[in-house]
Amino acid sequence: MRRKFEVKQELPDDFVIEAGTGHRWHREGFRVLYADTDKAGVVYHANYLKYFEIGRAGFVRATGRSYKEVEALGLFHPIVDLRMQFESHADYDDLLSVYARPRSLAPVKFSYEYVVRNDQLGRILVHGYTIHCCIDKERRVLPVDEVTRAIFEDYGVIRER
Amino acid sequence: MRRKFEVKQELPDDFVIEAGTGHRWHREGFRVLYADTDKAGVVYHANYLKYFEIGRAGFVRATGRSYKEVEALGLFHPIVDLRMQFESHADYDDLLSVYARPRSLAPVKFSYEYVVRNDQLGRILVHGYTIHCCIDKERRVLPVDEVTRAIFEDYGVIRER
Amino acid sequence: MRRKFEVKQELPDDFVIEAGTGHRWHREGFRVLYADTDKAGVVYHANYLKYFEIGRAGFVRATGRSYKEVEALGLFHPIVDLRMQFESHADYDDLLSVYARPRSLAPVKFSYEYVVRNDQLGRILVHGYTIHCCIDKERRVLPVDEVTRAIFEDYGVIRER
Amino acid sequence: MRRKFEVKQELPDDFVIEAGTGHRWHREGFRVLYADTDKAGVVYHANYLKYFEIGRAGFVRATGRSYKEVEALGLFHPIVDLRMQFESHADYDDLLSVYARPRSLAPVKFSYEYVVRNDQLGRILVHGYTIHCCIDKERRVLPVDEVTRAIFEDYGVIRER
Repeated sequence: MRRKFEVKQELPDDFVIEAGTGHRWHREGFRVLYADTDKAGVVYHANYLKYFEIGRAGFVRATGRSYKEVEALGLFHPIVDLRMQFESHADYDDLLSVYARPRSLAPVKFSYEYVVRNDQLGRILVHGYTIHCCIDKERRVLPVDEVTRAIFEDYGVIRER
Repeated sequence: MRRKFEVKQELPDDFVIEAGTGHRWHREGFRVLYADTDKAGVVYHANYLKYFEIGRAGFVRATGRSYKEVEALGLFHPIVDLRMQFESHADYDDLLSVYARPRSLAPVKFSYEYVVRNDQLGRILVHGYTIHCCIDKERRVLPVDEVTRAIFEDYGVIRER
Repeated sequence: MRRKFEVKQELPDDFVIEAGTGHRWHREGFRVLYADTDKAGVVYHANYLKYFEIGRAGFVRATGRSYKEVEALGLFHPIVDLRMQFESHADYDDLLSVYARPRSLAPVKFSYEYVVRNDQLGRILVHGYTIHCCIDKERRVLPVDEVTRAIFEDYGVIRER
Repeated sequence: MRRKFEVKQELPDDFVIEAGTGHRWHREGFRVLYADTDKAGVVYHANYLKYFEIGRAGFVRATGRSYKEVEALGLFHPIVDLRMQFESHADYDDLLSVYARPRSLAPVKFSYEYVVRNDQLGRILVHGYTIHCCIDKERRVLPVDEVTRAIFEDYGVIRER
């Protein structure tokens, strides 16, 4: 049930190869704010969704693209489904990493996978996924846009039919 | 894939019976803050986890108990797993309802189910669950505490063995 | 330095008259979420700005208007200046009140005053103000809109020239 | 009324000297998250308090100390007073800087000053201050702790008597 996550190889631009699966992930470091903690003395669970966002944006930026290109097309990528599994906790001021990678691409949806880890302790905190669709300003669902398809296909995700 | 949710009967203390399943849910109303919205003009996905918290706390309060009793025992109920499925969006100032009910109880974990709905439009926005464990101040996992077991058993959730 | 705040008279629609000043305030009740707390075990300071927003929206709603009317004119009311003074703290699940009232109206700006109080303990937690201007979608500053001027003038704030 | 802020000289460890005043500030860069934006398409005002926190923590870390040392003494530094003035807005994904510096030190309180700026555009977004006191776990006010006095005095803030 517990997820393993070991880095087999470091690549340029903060990409890494995961041991075992061979998956390529992008790593983005960040610090836990006091604002992110709660009365239990640890990061409040909802804030890991912001860390997932940091990971997703970091991955897209590392490919040389930006979500702003999607916005410029008049499109949005709302989340339609997500899951988070919590294995350990984080404290104020901890230096953490969020690892993100494209997971799947279908005609009208696509998904990312995430691992939030305390690299110093080699400890996974949270892992999960988000599934997104593509909509316009009238909130009509459209096929996944070319910017996103290019990002996923360059990365090596085969488009499902 | 789309969830249905219809109220068959209103009960005292903001409880309702769901049509079809016969499940008993607690309803808590709230308003969407400007702070909860994002650049897409709708509620940012992570904020639905706060609405789930509003639902969970409202349910516990309606049973006459409080999470503060759990805290007074030196215990916490961190989330170990959660899922959210998004069906529609909410705008600033919308008056919404979050419905919450106990879903399952096992020796070392328990779970809640949630539906966030715009009752005026009869539209489900988000549904999902959270699974919790019970830990002490040293973050050791313990059997589910008596306060929580009493709440779940009074409500009618059979304890799994 | 410490602010006093006593209610002299209750009015319909959750308005009250303050003892001493004779100011009329609108009261809106709310509960502290676990999400609002931080590692120090109390509400994180930035969250009081959300409580100010709850107070401001509650006041406007009680006048029979809504910020949505301002939006429908293609206008926004960004904050240009704010101050918060903290006198005491709040715990998880506390039932608090935010009191809000219009403070001043000038040709291109207007302001609200707030008091967040634990009514049960008779304890002021935070008080402060926000000063807003009125802009259009191109973020050009405009004279204060008629909706807001009507709200302030109905309430009894004399427009400064 | 508009604040000026120009960097006269870059120093090691992301410190800078401000033109005109000669003040020494610490600079910390960060990116605007989608989570930080609101329906008006810009950063929601309360989130600048998180950016102030990023600035304050970055400054303390650059001095080789940490707020965790204060916590280890059983102490907290709650905010007792703050002000924020807003001059311009920020968009999603903007790369911003928060500049922070110690402002004053008195027997029972101390304060920081902040400027949030879009360095690329040379545009100040928000500036302000926070005033803190020092309390123990029973929330009793104590003289400012030695860790903080050392940070402020090393930095050159003369202690007021």
